[in-house]
Amino acid sequence: MKSSALSQLARRTGEPPISWLMKMTLDRPELISLAAGFTDNESLPVRDARDLLDAVLGSPKTGGPALQYGSTPGDATLRRLTAGHLAALDGASKASSVHIADRTLITHGSQQLLYMTTEALCDPGDIVLVEDPTYFVYLGILQSHALRARGVRLTADGLDLAYLEAVLESLKRSGDLPRVKILYLVTYHQNPTGLTTSFAKKLGALELLRRYERFAGHPIYLLEDAAYRELRFAGDDVKSALATKFSERVIYAGTYSKPFATGARVGFGLLPEPVLTAVRRIKGNHDFGTANLLQQLLASALGTSRYETHVGELRERYARKAAVMVRAICEHFPPNIAWDEPRGGLYVWARLPRKIKSGAKSKLFQAALAHDVLYVPGELCYASDPTRARPNHEMRLSFGGASLADISHGIERLGQVLRSIH
Amino acid sequence: MKSSALSQLARRTGEPPISWLMKMTLDRPELISLAAGFTDNESLPVRDARDLLDAVLGSPKTGGPALQYGSTPGDATLRRLTAGHLAALDGASKASSVHIADRTLITHGSQQLLYMTTEALCDPGDIVLVEDPTYFVYLGILQSHALRARGVRLTADGLDLAYLEAVLESLKRSGDLPRVKILYLVTYHQNPTGLTTSFAKKLGALELLRRYERFAGHPIYLLEDAAYRELRFAGDDVKSALATKFSERVIYAGTYSKPFATGARVGFGLLPEPVLTAVRRIKGNHDFGTANLLQQLLASALGTSRYETHVGELRERYARKAAVMVRAICEHFPPNIAWDEPRGGLYVWARLPRKIKSGAKSKLFQAALAHDVLYVPGELCYASDPTRARPNHEMRLSFGGASLADISHGIERLGQVLRSIH
Repeated sequence: MKSSALSQLARRTGEPPISWLMKMTLDRPELISLAAGFTDNESLPVRDARDLLDAVLGSPKTGGPALQYGSTPGDATLRRLTAGHLAALDGASKASSVHIADRTLITHGSQQLLYMTTEALCDPGDIVLVEDPTYFVYLGILQSHALRARGVRLTADGLDLAYLEAVLESLKRSGDLPRVKILYLVTYHQNPTGLTTSFAKKLGALELLRRYERFAGHPIYLLEDAAYRELRFAGDDVKSALATKFSERVIYAGTYSKPFATGARVGFGLLPEPVLTAVRRIKGNHDFGTANLLQQLLASALGTSRYETHVGELRERYARKAAVMVRAICEHFPPNIAWDEPRGGLYVWARLPRKIKSGAKSKLFQAALAHDVLYVPGELCYASDPTRARPNHEMRLSFGGASLADISHGIERLGQVLRSIH
Repeated sequence: MKSSALSQLARRTGEPPISWLMKMTLDRPELISLAAGFTDNESLPVRDARDLLDAVLGSPKTGGPALQYGSTPGDATLRRLTAGHLAALDGASKASSVHIADRTLITHGSQQLLYMTTEALCDPGDIVLVEDPTYFVYLGILQSHALRARGVRLTADGLDLAYLEAVLESLKRSGDLPRVKILYLVTYHQNPTGLTTSFAKKLGALELLRRYERFAGHPIYLLEDAAYRELRFAGDDVKSALATKFSERVIYAGTYSKPFATGARVGFGLLPEPVLTAVRRIKGNHDFGTANLLQQLLASALGTSRYETHVGELRERYARKAAVMVRAICEHFPPNIAWDEPRGGLYVWARLPRKIKSGAKSKLFQAALAHDVLYVPGELCYASDPTRARPNHEMRLSFGGASLADISHGIERLGQVLRSIH
């Protein structure tokens, strides 16, 4: 005595970087955070939510149900509206057998769907293919469940398919293909790079997965995380992987947190069998259903024009914030830093010369902190992948939560730091 | 091809009985369900929630934060109010180092806390000691995670301590004690029996656990599920296990779902280290925090008199519903059926003569269905325990969700069925 009673899972589950970054922000009010994935405060739909909840709770038809347990998969109306909303985005016909309520689950944020899907498909030692870089909280889930990750290189329109094929081929040769369960892609305005995956790339990736399934001995699923899909302010929408002919291999994770209200934490998934049934059962054990009050709020926002109107306003708002960040970067960053103009989402991904480290222990990060500005070190967004060194020369800069003035000042401060480091 | 890609966990996770029973209720509107653990519809705090949310969203101080992400452990105000509320229930002093916000986590229902705590402590093959019978959804979590259960016999005031000691002694002898991580108890108006565990029994159980920890080589925790604590309508409150000197071994799971609104799905836990940190990190992966909108609603209910007033009304309401059920049972049930008068909670536990089976495949259950009345078969509430046969002669009868008229008619129908089976 006394060793601890903690499980292997608990021992593997580290402090999430997101907590550490959030805490730093909360503890130092003078700090300008370009790190947190918080959404814009000023455009939160406070008045909409107040009106809608007043109507939901004021109606005998919805008031009681909003405060009572519901079913594990979620409110029937919200599932129908969600499937219809997605069908409209994907240009699917009314007769689509894919964009339907029966394949839809409502969750406490899309994060919960990512967690449960991973539980449903992966045993310790299994392999998940991820973008290189990818969403760091998902990497935390993999770490916690003792899963292995393999990174797939990105190009301007999503996965490098030749690289994906080489990874699959190498896993086939090493006999590891049967351990591959999921290809996880953040397909719209990716966290952290801001890149959007083209429809052709989704199709190409699914074709490759299908080809290698034969050697895996079981389906390999594309887990499409579309969290930022509706935060598009330039270019056209891209159809989701549900619109390919491989929809039986697609798990679509969506959310109303980002486009409506993060404090309402309503996400959703469209899933094929047998994953759908497995995840629904797992959700029965997690919480047997998402809070009905939140579901009724979202159903009433979607069922009226409030949702669409709000998303429209949000796009204008983020377009403006992105423009302010871009202008400040042009003005203050040294010229040897590469970055792309965002077309949606919350992030600019800045690539420094490889010799300049950006990690939490780097001079740059410490100097930025001393100048009261915080970014997400790029290294956090890379999986532990034995086939390459972890890149450590990038920064994720968020224009989501910071005010317009803070975006300008934060980038200005960071620019000073970057110039001083050279 | 094609075998499935599902994980071992998914393969173990069966259809929860709760879904099956809920679905049966929804599909057959003429059915009177005395099965579902739904709470009373008529007393749902619709007006309170409407007023409180209007105030929360109408205030610049709380409106924005209610719709924004918060921190993983939960809203600071709600954690403080929760710790204070529990301190008051336990008669703890202001200086208590146990009933404090820093040890408090806010979750999506107490179910989520049960799930995460089990993830944090148990590896496949580990053993959880449970009451015999116990809350069947928790048994689903154990099954899903390949955990073994051992049932501990109950007496009128909680665990049979001699039986618990015998179980621990036998596990010590078999070398299985190092696999024992948790003793799970539903301590107030237990689901399904309605029994309440006395403070002396909590203390006695903790003393036994402490004595056997030496042989386990690590702490063994008491997971105290207090979901029904505030639904007491007779007798005095009993202090929680947090009020013993063994609070470092106590994980307290509480909820606002049952006493306020199940549709708001806010639960909470008070946890000792290192379990607290482990569960907080796991929550970071599950959903990185409970929906702020729900937390602000509960904080504002607790911070005003609305919460206490509502709980008072609820107690009167359930007292009346319980009395109606008790009167109907006295009138309609044959005399060879044993049951105890409930003093709180939502359930009456009826014990038939052992020779009369009550399971889902029994004549009794099928005859009850044919008479349009549904109960929870007692067998569902028993763990798979190799040391005894699973009892199959009991019924859980809920007076929570049904109307007063349905309670009377439902019991009357069940009485007819019971008399016809004799």
